[in-house]
Amino acid sequence: MTDGTPMALALDEARAAAARGEVPVGAVVTDPAGRALARAGNEVEARRDPSAHAEILALRGAAAVLGEKWLAGCTLWVTLEPCPMCAQASSLFRVRRVVFGAYDPKGGGVEHGARVLSASSCHHVPEVVGGVRETESGGLLRAFFAERR
Amino acid sequence: MTDGTPMALALDEARAAAARGEVPVGAVVTDPAGRALARAGNEVEARRDPSAHAEILALRGAAAVLGEKWLAGCTLWVTLEPCPMCAQASSLFRVRRVVFGAYDPKGGGVEHGARVLSASSCHHVPEVVGGVRETESGGLLRAFFAERR
Repeated sequence: MTDGTPMALALDEARAAAARGEVPVGAVVTDPAGRALARAGNEVEARRDPSAHAEILALRGAAAVLGEKWLAGCTLWVTLEPCPMCAQASSLFRVRRVVFGAYDPKGGGVEHGARVLSASSCHHVPEVVGGVRETESGGLLRAFFAERR
Repeated sequence: MTDGTPMALALDEARAAAARGEVPVGAVVTDPAGRALARAGNEVEARRDPSAHAEILALRGAAAVLGEKWLAGCTLWVTLEPCPMCAQASSLFRVRRVVFGAYDPKGGGVEHGARVLSASSCHHVPEVVGGVRETESGGLLRAFFAERR
């Protein structure tokens, strides 16, 4: 299922994050049947916690819902290419797939920079699909930062 | 201050983690004066949360103690070379320095694998010191895994 329906939820989370003054990134974890287990937006500012990226919160939330450490067969949907921290977290939680929206040449760690999931330090390698609803995801981020300049 | 005193606290946390059935890794964050702000051991099993590495918990704990998002001038001490997730987290929390014990050629993401802190995706690069009380740190891990085989 890459029809982008969970990405619409992730985009909603990104918009809600922007409204709270957070960098607009949203994430959703779906189970193997495509049902959303958890969703989250960035909470870095609210929690004063630079590790409170949308992906980490959604992954932790999904594991809590399942009562399982590993998210076997699950998909992480996120509006922006994950940073190296979140890319490695997707591997540690053992999701089957990572689907992201906008590419992030500066801070991304999947298709750019540290390319964490392609490194020898990565022992569970999720499938990766990038560019899903990229224009909307990237547009949210551009609008957010343009307003702050 | 690299006399290893905070590393002794981190080793205590690693031993306590082993006693709880967790992979024995411990971490401490010290402020610029060398005082311990937070300390933690791995809690992956207890929390059923693969992101609950000692480093993440200690970084979050230190930020909570300071009431600050960034750990300016602080040092992260950890008994094992951080994985890519924790290496990036040390950058996101903006610690000045990462001091680690044993090198981790398989899973480490600082001196091995993704080498996260040397990548273009890393915008704040902490100073890194590896190999501090390496033998004790590595010994704890070897003993833990030998017992489980």
